[in-house]
Amino acid sequence: MFDLESYLDSKRRVINTHLEEILQNTSNSSRLIKAMHYSLMADGKRLRPVLCIAAAEVVGGQTRDALKAACALEMIHTYSLIHDDLPAMDDDEVRRGKPTCHIAFDEASAILAGDALLTLAFQILSAVEIRDGSQASKWLRIIHRVAGAAGYRGMIAGQMKDIASENKVLSLKELEELHALKTGALIEASVYSGAILGGDRTEQIDQLGIYAKNIGLAFQIKDDILNVEGNPALLGKAVGTDEIRQKNTYPFLMGLEKSKSFAEELVSHALQAIASFDSKADPLRAIATYIVQRNR
Amino acid sequence: MFDLESYLDSKRRVINTHLEEILQNTSNSSRLIKAMHYSLMADGKRLRPVLCIAAAEVVGGQTRDALKAACALEMIHTYSLIHDDLPAMDDDEVRRGKPTCHIAFDEASAILAGDALLTLAFQILSAVEIRDGSQASKWLRIIHRVAGAAGYRGMIAGQMKDIASENKVLSLKELEELHALKTGALIEASVYSGAILGGDRTEQIDQLGIYAKNIGLAFQIKDDILNVEGNPALLGKAVGTDEIRQKNTYPFLMGLEKSKSFAEELVSHALQAIASFDSKADPLRAIATYIVQRNR
Repeated sequence: MFDLESYLDSKRRVINTHLEEILQNTSNSSRLIKAMHYSLMADGKRLRPVLCIAAAEVVGGQTRDALKAACALEMIHTYSLIHDDLPAMDDDEVRRGKPTCHIAFDEASAILAGDALLTLAFQILSAVEIRDGSQASKWLRIIHRVAGAAGYRGMIAGQMKDIASENKVLSLKELEELHALKTGALIEASVYSGAILGGDRTEQIDQLGIYAKNIGLAFQIKDDILNVEGNPALLGKAVGTDEIRQKNTYPFLMGLEKSKSFAEELVSHALQAIASFDSKADPLRAIATYIVQRNR
Repeated sequence: MFDLESYLDSKRRVINTHLEEILQNTSNSSRLIKAMHYSLMADGKRLRPVLCIAAAEVVGGQTRDALKAACALEMIHTYSLIHDDLPAMDDDEVRRGKPTCHIAFDEASAILAGDALLTLAFQILSAVEIRDGSQASKWLRIIHRVAGAAGYRGMIAGQMKDIASENKVLSLKELEELHALKTGALIEASVYSGAILGGDRTEQIDQLGIYAKNIGLAFQIKDDILNVEGNPALLGKAVGTDEIRQKNTYPFLMGLEKSKSFAEELVSHALQAIASFDSKADPLRAIATYIVQRNR
């Protein structure tokens, strides 16, 4: 029986160690590095980097093949949280169980720490010892895919739509599109990057893409559900905020019970997409189930 | 006799056309794209992209070899202006002759437009048809260098230092270091990228690095001087603001006349570094002189 908890623990440990190594935060570090470190090393689920590593393993790779990309993806995710939390955006005060970056530091530092984490992600993705050209091409493809997913036709477009939709009711199709951009694109890019770095086998990559698309949306629906009935102490952030802000969410648009069964349905689509894979895909299978069962 | 004005005109036209092609701004574009377009296509000097192209030409390359990188560099520069102008940072209301992005749009849109331009720069730098591996390695080196120059040990560190030094007097050495980070690093990366893409000859790259370092600082000193005695209508931004904010500047620390002669001295160092180059370096020579003679 595959033990997800110890799998997640061990991967998170490797990821956190590598993130610490990259940032080299010391008592002498600048305020900028301290702010980057504060948000990056807060207690996050590390979903995107774990997915990246797990996808690399599915196609026959090792953790070390995907570790750099995994860390870069977590940096991009963290930058997006820091900027989304700013007063001019969602104006949130608690994140990952701690005051948000602009509260713990100040607004200018939070903007720059976000900028710096985004930039550092691309520095990491391009920091490879190139021995052969095909390796270089691989990394370029990953940079292109990640930048596309994080950019103005991906995650940032999603955040912009999210802000724009605050005072209107979306259709389910519009909400799905919003989530696909805001969280789905980077989750898909995480799985894609891992798969490319682990082995680069086209037929598996297509199936992994379907898997990622489905768990990406399921993850967001579960996030919406936790905002209704989750425990703020476990979540590390406030609940009930979506209702106060009259945000478009799945529970709001289709009700809590229907949202739960829709999330379950997406997870089973995800599992189906990788049903023919061998036991190396067990972590991905367990993560898919975890996504709708988690309480944080 | 080399005609800088028509050289700059023709390069700016090519750069602007390519930037327009990348963004594809139409009447149907999202508010995000409109905000990106608004700041990116405002009337800028295009110094970094022109330097990138001119450096490519020095080593035997063509405009087209460096055009993508040139546009990516202008995007990174524009993102840094948008974020620096934010209320939480320098709180500026006019830039490139127009209301700043957060005034013309809103703060959230300005933060996201900046994020999006930064991300798009890396998408452009990785969007290359790779026919051979050595080409891919070249682009990876450029991405790494540009990300390093723009990042937490480069431009962003400079902006952070700039904010932190607002209520204290710096030494000349500290001010030089601040400028080297805040503007110098990206200017050096622009020249480096062009040289790599144009021909990649090591001995010329070292000399071009010295050239870039010197004009980078000269450019910033001239900016300080223009803030004292420039014409706001020509500059497209307010003057006298450094004094009001008690900013550390060269005129403040060493006086206006000494600042001018120091800038001239740096330019002659820059010219010396490329003295042995043939006439293909004439644009770079003219740009160096223009940097201290410009009135905008």
